[in-house]
Amino acid sequence: MKHFHYTEVENLDVPAPANKVKIRWLINEKNGAPNFAMRRFEVAPGGSTPYHTHEWEHEVYVLEGDAVAVSKNGETRIGPGSVLLVESNDVHNFKNTGDRPLVFLCLIPLQK
Amino acid sequence: MKHFHYTEVENLDVPAPANKVKIRWLINEKNGAPNFAMRRFEVAPGGSTPYHTHEWEHEVYVLEGDAVAVSKNGETRIGPGSVLLVESNDVHNFKNTGDRPLVFLCLIPLQK
Repeated sequence: MKHFHYTEVENLDVPAPANKVKIRWLINEKNGAPNFAMRRFEVAPGGSTPYHTHEWEHEVYVLEGDAVAVSKNGETRIGPGSVLLVESNDVHNFKNTGDRPLVFLCLIPLQK
Repeated sequence: MKHFHYTEVENLDVPAPANKVKIRWLINEKNGAPNFAMRRFEVAPGGSTPYHTHEWEHEVYVLEGDAVAVSKNGETRIGPGSVLLVESNDVHNFKNTGDRPLVFLCLIPLQK
């Protein structure tokens, strides 16, 4: 069993077109995950993740903040305790609409 | 994109030898996950998950509470923001050592 606190993991800037987004790779192949990766994102007030699409799914759990999730069907308000499944090839992004950080976990399958 | 709040998902009793443990299956094959499942556990004060082992890994993020994670190497204190990778065939359990619920996310690969 491997264990640590999320604050022990480096908080990296996500490059543009992400805006004010940081990522911690909590669990991935580097610490021995065989199937999927756990990342913790922080989006500062006014920031957003890119509106984009990809083949792999996201499984998201919102920890803190006020935000909207954008999909082809429009915007949905999300906050602490929101759960999202972004399916393969769904266009999506997350916008921080509040005055404090938006924090969420986002898990993805590992490429094999 | 599918989205909901965790409270919309039924909170099920986990049978013995789990003790005072409830589970919400937030994301799994029933709502279209192709690779891995997200579960949210609540362990009441005095409760614990079974000391057990299995082939699949756990990826855990602790949301609330005070607890210990038990492995073959002994006990480790965990709390909000703790991250754990329980690897294949690691014996493990989680014991709530506090006076409020222990809450954590635990993700597992789907059986294929």
